[in-house]
Amino acid sequence: MPQPGLMMNRPLLISGILEHAAAQFGDQEVVSRETHGPLHRCTYADVARRARQLANALQQMGLKAGSAVGSIAWNNHRHLEAYYAVSGSGMVMHTCNPRLHPQQLIYIINHAEDEVVLFDATFAPLVQGIAAHCPNVRAWVCLADAAHTPAIEGVANVRNYEDLIAPHGSSFDWPELDETTGAALCYTSGTTGNPKGVLYSHRAIVMNATSACMPDVLGLSTQETVLPVVPMFHINAWCIPYAALLSGTRLVLPGPKLDGASLYELMASEEVTISAGVPTIWMGLIQHAEANGLRFPSMKRTCVGGSAMPMALIAKFMDVYGVEVRHGWGMTETTAVATMSNLSRTDRRKPAAEQHAIVARQGKVVSGIEIKVVDENGATLPRDGTSQGELMVRGQWIVERYFKTDRTALVDGWFPTGDIATIDADGVMTIRDRTKDVIKSGGEWISSIDLENAAIAHPAVAMAAVIGVKHPKWDERPLLFVVLKPGQALEKQEILDFLATRVAKWWVPEDVVFLESLPVGGTGKVQKNELRQKYGGVFAA
Amino acid sequence: MPQPGLMMNRPLLISGILEHAAAQFGDQEVVSRETHGPLHRCTYADVARRARQLANALQQMGLKAGSAVGSIAWNNHRHLEAYYAVSGSGMVMHTCNPRLHPQQLIYIINHAEDEVVLFDATFAPLVQGIAAHCPNVRAWVCLADAAHTPAIEGVANVRNYEDLIAPHGSSFDWPELDETTGAALCYTSGTTGNPKGVLYSHRAIVMNATSACMPDVLGLSTQETVLPVVPMFHINAWCIPYAALLSGTRLVLPGPKLDGASLYELMASEEVTISAGVPTIWMGLIQHAEANGLRFPSMKRTCVGGSAMPMALIAKFMDVYGVEVRHGWGMTETTAVATMSNLSRTDRRKPAAEQHAIVARQGKVVSGIEIKVVDENGATLPRDGTSQGELMVRGQWIVERYFKTDRTALVDGWFPTGDIATIDADGVMTIRDRTKDVIKSGGEWISSIDLENAAIAHPAVAMAAVIGVKHPKWDERPLLFVVLKPGQALEKQEILDFLATRVAKWWVPEDVVFLESLPVGGTGKVQKNELRQKYGGVFAA
Repeated sequence: MPQPGLMMNRPLLISGILEHAAAQFGDQEVVSRETHGPLHRCTYADVARRARQLANALQQMGLKAGSAVGSIAWNNHRHLEAYYAVSGSGMVMHTCNPRLHPQQLIYIINHAEDEVVLFDATFAPLVQGIAAHCPNVRAWVCLADAAHTPAIEGVANVRNYEDLIAPHGSSFDWPELDETTGAALCYTSGTTGNPKGVLYSHRAIVMNATSACMPDVLGLSTQETVLPVVPMFHINAWCIPYAALLSGTRLVLPGPKLDGASLYELMASEEVTISAGVPTIWMGLIQHAEANGLRFPSMKRTCVGGSAMPMALIAKFMDVYGVEVRHGWGMTETTAVATMSNLSRTDRRKPAAEQHAIVARQGKVVSGIEIKVVDENGATLPRDGTSQGELMVRGQWIVERYFKTDRTALVDGWFPTGDIATIDADGVMTIRDRTKDVIKSGGEWISSIDLENAAIAHPAVAMAAVIGVKHPKWDERPLLFVVLKPGQALEKQEILDFLATRVAKWWVPEDVVFLESLPVGGTGKVQKNELRQKYGGVFAA
Repeated sequence: MPQPGLMMNRPLLISGILEHAAAQFGDQEVVSRETHGPLHRCTYADVARRARQLANALQQMGLKAGSAVGSIAWNNHRHLEAYYAVSGSGMVMHTCNPRLHPQQLIYIINHAEDEVVLFDATFAPLVQGIAAHCPNVRAWVCLADAAHTPAIEGVANVRNYEDLIAPHGSSFDWPELDETTGAALCYTSGTTGNPKGVLYSHRAIVMNATSACMPDVLGLSTQETVLPVVPMFHINAWCIPYAALLSGTRLVLPGPKLDGASLYELMASEEVTISAGVPTIWMGLIQHAEANGLRFPSMKRTCVGGSAMPMALIAKFMDVYGVEVRHGWGMTETTAVATMSNLSRTDRRKPAAEQHAIVARQGKVVSGIEIKVVDENGATLPRDGTSQGELMVRGQWIVERYFKTDRTALVDGWFPTGDIATIDADGVMTIRDRTKDVIKSGGEWISSIDLENAAIAHPAVAMAAVIGVKHPKWDERPLLFVVLKPGQALEKQEILDFLATRVAKWWVPEDVVFLESLPVGGTGKVQKNELRQKYGGVFAA
């Protein structure tokens, strides 16, 4: 019989992170872009004080532990305060992706039973469109003062954040919750069916935030200034809003201005050292820097996730600008980052191109997480870097079941990610495709992602997408969609010849379709289902 | 009603750390000094393989989950393997301090009910003296191969580690334990009464090891090489044996050779970047470096704890050698480090002397821990940097009750540390004294530690200790003990005059006693009880 340990039983709580920051890093700065433009400066002591005011305000409005509070908001200091006030008081912080279709927004606000929705003025038209369909929402609170809160025609219960919290005291006794209590809720942007909610626990978030501070993950500390471009409305902005306070890291929040020029200005003026975002954002930033002959003197590293970072972009960051790139992987179902690429000490002595290839992979698991790849029968595949199978994940911050479902989402205790991946002998994971996007051709798999990356390496190509199309002989064959860069021209045969030098011969697409644009969904991903519906017929034999 | 989170429930287990290291950092190196002299090199994959072999061997010997395994051993790779094999299989790793009195060793081995004791050959004479009094121990296993295992007269059941594990397979199914299961046991070296055991849980150790990797704590990563001089027989070597594997940090274990010359040689040849130990160790190291004109090119920082680091030593490390110093605080009851000093970005722009004073403090709490100071009635004192009171601690890795007691060790949910401390507005904690050592003079407190630090700043003084002695008018007055450096002479009045320029007038000791040596106990601390017994009479009025 194991002996029980004799240690204190203290819960891991989000309120603990806030009070830790207030007590130890009270004068650490938070710089936040207001929705109406100017920069706002405050400290962690201010954030804690105002979060307690908001907790009092929500309580007075009749919200209770278990109540849900929605947000449709940018990364800013009021959204940050809400993260702590809502979860800290045992309520559920439901972050909504404003890029969802209004019908989906209505669905998730009602499904989550949001009683209050916080929103930024940017989204007033959105609120106007959905408010009448969300009967449970008692108040729509604009994250602004009275002067910057628009009247919304037809929506009576609009309040402003500053007037809401002003009358309330700045002390609040955070409840000592069970650490498995639900703290935050985020819905997947499912391309088919209704979005599915993931209800993160306090424990999952605190564990992820702690691991995220480790030097080989984000490396947050009192010495750094972090700029999360990853949105607070999507997988908790990689838990940076928690990890920054936990570690005392100076925090810069970009608000609505995510174009290259605005981000560059913010990074430079605030001497940002670490950032995190999706490849598109970094593309815009680099274009701005190149066009204006700018450098990144304070930046140490940029962490990227959401989709694959083009190799050329990695090379520019690392070789031209001296900014380290790390590639992360996570999904709504994994709270935040689950794996992160990194250069080991020996890797750092390798040629530049090899280093780029290493950080372009999705990397090793963060401590607290385990992964494996399995074949179609669920058998574990070898960690040889070439055996592809579905990526399975388990650990401290992985979903068990979706919100308001009573059936586990797991298979034998592991969450099936729907990603096709390989793992090598050092534990380095590489995403090869989505299970639903992978192309089965003649009994073998073709990775749509690998084909897209190969196509995008062509200097005339701006965007590329590949789907599988039924084929009488090979079961499926790849069909390539290409969006050209402005002013560029390209023949079908040219791009096929280009690909033939880069991929196996039987991977070369069956056909190419040139488009003006690709359909992109709420989280910035190409909606291949739309392409399949329109172009997914049958190839001639 | 709070909503339950819907995340996986995965336990935090020590076996998880081992398999994480094997899967991701399998070829990371462990360099270990053998007890008989040479360096031994292996990898985390080897450690995992051999830990599983040991787990099989212990199981075959009849040990079960809950069984205790003792160790009397240096920091070396076999001891490391045992840390994982024993705790990983649900048994209790009971690390014994070889500097305890043999009677105390017998007491703790019997009290813990150790069924096997692992020992290094250095301690063969100790084993010979105690074995007959430890009837529950089935085997005394020397951490060596057959060639380096001494026969011990009168002890029949001596085995050697290599022959013990050799026949066993290297796969082992680690049990999926509850994370609150007891994993490791360490006894305090109480100066009065019997030692008291602290039974650490898997959760406490994994949480501490994770936080210890954070950049502002130890800052462990795949980029670093860490040398724990802090012994594995005492508060888990600050959990570095866990944190190193968790983070993939290269590990250098010094075995029995802890003198300045040996440590220097190891640090230099293995390019150590981070180290941790008590001030005495660093004193020996610096003396060796100074005498031989050596530098520390690879060292980034040294972390110190156990007792106060003299300011002169801090200055040498930081200003002469460019090695950052961090001061930690913890005790047997806190698993490992609970607070750590650090220079903030603004601190780094301050004059050198101010920086030394900052890192000489015990610092801020590590995320997962809370502290407060209370007066004699238990009321919380202000965080003003001057209000002194007993330091109370609670959090993820703090004891709740001592081993085999049924009474909580807590007061209102907090562990009373017996240390007198202040906390400032930034949360920085400074240990001022032990409650039992503080001197109550005329209704005010005099810190024996502050007086000792002031005395040790005199160039002729090698060691100093202060106790309170009864006084008819003032209740207590300080009595100073001084050990001079070799070849130095000093008059009573000289040291008193020296102190009068450094402390408040009423702090100046009533008398001075010059000694050849001070009594030092098992964990390297001066045994003030012995001084009190011999010198603690009553001062004349």
